[in-house]
Amino acid sequence: MQAINIGLLGLGTVGGGVAEVLRDNQAEIARRLGRQINITAVCDLNAERAAQLCPQAEWVANPMDLVQRADVDIVVELFGGTGIAKEAVLNAINSGKHVVTANKKLLAEYGNEIFALAEQKNVMVQFEAAVAGGIPVIKALREGLAANRIQSIAGIINGTSNFILSEMREKGSAFKDVLAEAQRLGYAEADPTFDIEGHDAGHKITIMSALAFGTPVNFGACYLEGISRLDSRDIKYAEELGYRVKLLGITRKTDKGIELRVHPTLIPECRLLANVNGVMNAVRVQADMVGETLYYGAGAGALPTASAVVADLIDISRLITADTENRVPHLAFQPSQVQAQNFVGMDDITSSYYLRVQVTDKAGVLGTIANLLAKEGVSIEALIQKAVLDNNQAEIVILTHSTVERNVKTALRAIEALDSVGAPVTLIRMESLNG
Amino acid sequence: MQAINIGLLGLGTVGGGVAEVLRDNQAEIARRLGRQINITAVCDLNAERAAQLCPQAEWVANPMDLVQRADVDIVVELFGGTGIAKEAVLNAINSGKHVVTANKKLLAEYGNEIFALAEQKNVMVQFEAAVAGGIPVIKALREGLAANRIQSIAGIINGTSNFILSEMREKGSAFKDVLAEAQRLGYAEADPTFDIEGHDAGHKITIMSALAFGTPVNFGACYLEGISRLDSRDIKYAEELGYRVKLLGITRKTDKGIELRVHPTLIPECRLLANVNGVMNAVRVQADMVGETLYYGAGAGALPTASAVVADLIDISRLITADTENRVPHLAFQPSQVQAQNFVGMDDITSSYYLRVQVTDKAGVLGTIANLLAKEGVSIEALIQKAVLDNNQAEIVILTHSTVERNVKTALRAIEALDSVGAPVTLIRMESLNG
Repeated sequence: MQAINIGLLGLGTVGGGVAEVLRDNQAEIARRLGRQINITAVCDLNAERAAQLCPQAEWVANPMDLVQRADVDIVVELFGGTGIAKEAVLNAINSGKHVVTANKKLLAEYGNEIFALAEQKNVMVQFEAAVAGGIPVIKALREGLAANRIQSIAGIINGTSNFILSEMREKGSAFKDVLAEAQRLGYAEADPTFDIEGHDAGHKITIMSALAFGTPVNFGACYLEGISRLDSRDIKYAEELGYRVKLLGITRKTDKGIELRVHPTLIPECRLLANVNGVMNAVRVQADMVGETLYYGAGAGALPTASAVVADLIDISRLITADTENRVPHLAFQPSQVQAQNFVGMDDITSSYYLRVQVTDKAGVLGTIANLLAKEGVSIEALIQKAVLDNNQAEIVILTHSTVERNVKTALRAIEALDSVGAPVTLIRMESLNG
Repeated sequence: MQAINIGLLGLGTVGGGVAEVLRDNQAEIARRLGRQINITAVCDLNAERAAQLCPQAEWVANPMDLVQRADVDIVVELFGGTGIAKEAVLNAINSGKHVVTANKKLLAEYGNEIFALAEQKNVMVQFEAAVAGGIPVIKALREGLAANRIQSIAGIINGTSNFILSEMREKGSAFKDVLAEAQRLGYAEADPTFDIEGHDAGHKITIMSALAFGTPVNFGACYLEGISRLDSRDIKYAEELGYRVKLLGITRKTDKGIELRVHPTLIPECRLLANVNGVMNAVRVQADMVGETLYYGAGAGALPTASAVVADLIDISRLITADTENRVPHLAFQPSQVQAQNFVGMDDITSSYYLRVQVTDKAGVLGTIANLLAKEGVSIEALIQKAVLDNNQAEIVILTHSTVERNVKTALRAIEALDSVGAPVTLIRMESLNG
């Protein structure tokens, strides 16, 4: 069979990994695929690095030239961001090239436009590496679970945040100290906002939500709450109660619409997700026929991400001559079947809650708080009172039963208005992950 | 697009599940696939059940008639076993039908013959449901990880055994009591041999080994050791040392050849596999680029298994008009690239070991045992002495460092020959699962 020719945009961490995988595993890949995959053209600011990593490839200065070349069958976009990357991807599609990208931000924000153009031009846009790095979870959602109605997804999909939370738990350290350590180790960027405030996880869960439920991608509907305001006390108290705190991306189909959210979450410690530590990622999918499945692995890094990029190249190489109607659809569902659906606002989601209330330690305050919660229909599953030695303050930690978030927030406003309550109440959502 | 027509062989647990999935999720599947999947013909001894579960399908008395029908595109073989099932599958292929099967025994024992005929006849034989039920791990091995050289696989792939081991640990019960309970709950067959002696897990790891390393399937090369002789004391001692005992299917590429084995295994309790409990399955794959990935879910049951069968139907439906050279190869590698390789005999595998030695509690015996191990180059990582109250006997539990199995066995023969050693030494292999 004829070789497949690749044009590579960007030779950063992942791009370098793709060059390495295609070079070192060339023989093993050809044993599977029955043909060679060659990098014929490469575009990177650093021409020297390009010559070193892709000696066979021609260096091209302008990405918009590369995507039009006759000797390129598939464009691999690894620039990142939504500027040049977007233009290059759209130009590649317009030139009839298939595209592989690891760019979650681009797809979460402009996926609908990109996939629509790809369908019009009869090309494939593949993006396994955009979600959970090397874990083949996009393939599981689009193909492996295709017999199911998917009900919910919950994922640890940002390695930086998971590393920080794992360290905070193990060492009892404060957020800012662990962040500094993560930056020193290269697990966090100099500007870590994108990771720790949930944007990255939001992009990924937005993409998975669309694949699961057959909707357009809608990053604007995603609630984002990061880990930067988490107190290590809450991680400790949660552990005493049998829970771990994880930054989860969650999407769920409910009678009220689709929930789509990223926030710190208490998980029972017996769940596999609770035991995913360090920079590792894992995605749990609940579906009607198969029940619970979980996919675990490295969510970032040059070679794991390149593993996913090259798997996409292999998939496209297999299907490049197939009739277009038989391809796996970009968003898992046939384009005509992708339907906008209502998203549920955070006030209307149903969850249980971890609440930490700082109170002046005097008789009666516990009862008052319990009554204010009861008034809104919020029932208490567990409650522990923590003595704080100085200034006569105590902390009350409450786990609620499942309830609508609006009711909890209404109760919290009343609780925070009490004279004996000294600070805003800490609220962390909980997920039982048992259905 | 035209509907795809299915002929269903066998309406037992899984067959009934397939009928249910295709009925209840017809609309969701068509949204993804762009066409309908219809059961047009069904063969089962119970014609009444067939009429009830597949009202639209024609009941066919003879499976060899069904596989030749013009109104059948894909034959789904769910008879099980290697008698009629084998004949029906070969006849179906000879009639130019694609085949989906959940029959691990058939593929582990006759896969080479079946796949060779399928290639000759240009049809696909898909078998996601044959390994780990609803978990899309065949897809991960054949497609998701296709950029990698796979290094090893370790899987909890028999739910019955895992349920029994989980219960033995939690309740400290004896094997035979838990087996009786598992039989009462329907998790174990009246004749449980196939599950508890490792045959079922052996079939599954044999199939995965071929997919991982590009070899023919070779069930004869698989070492089988089940859980029926496990003592709950060993599970307890292992736990005290920080380990869980699991029945693992293991395959690994080494310099000496391919290891392929099923046996009880000590795993560090911090590993995800150690926390897979009850009837659930999980498969851990180590590969050179992506590192460690893990796939978890229900390994059996009507609907999870049917989820995998129907995913295969969807895959074939997509590719049914594609040129044959672009299909995913049956054994992950192109037929011309499937190469027999040397398998490593158990004496030559490298592992660390849990040893329990029953000794007369007298001075010096510990030193003698340590010396006998040292003489064979087996070094000790940890040792605990357990007092047993009656008849002056004690138990010594030893964890060894990594060594060649032959050396351990040689040392054990010398140890068992000691006057002060009262019973055969218990040996359980260990896996660190960290690379």
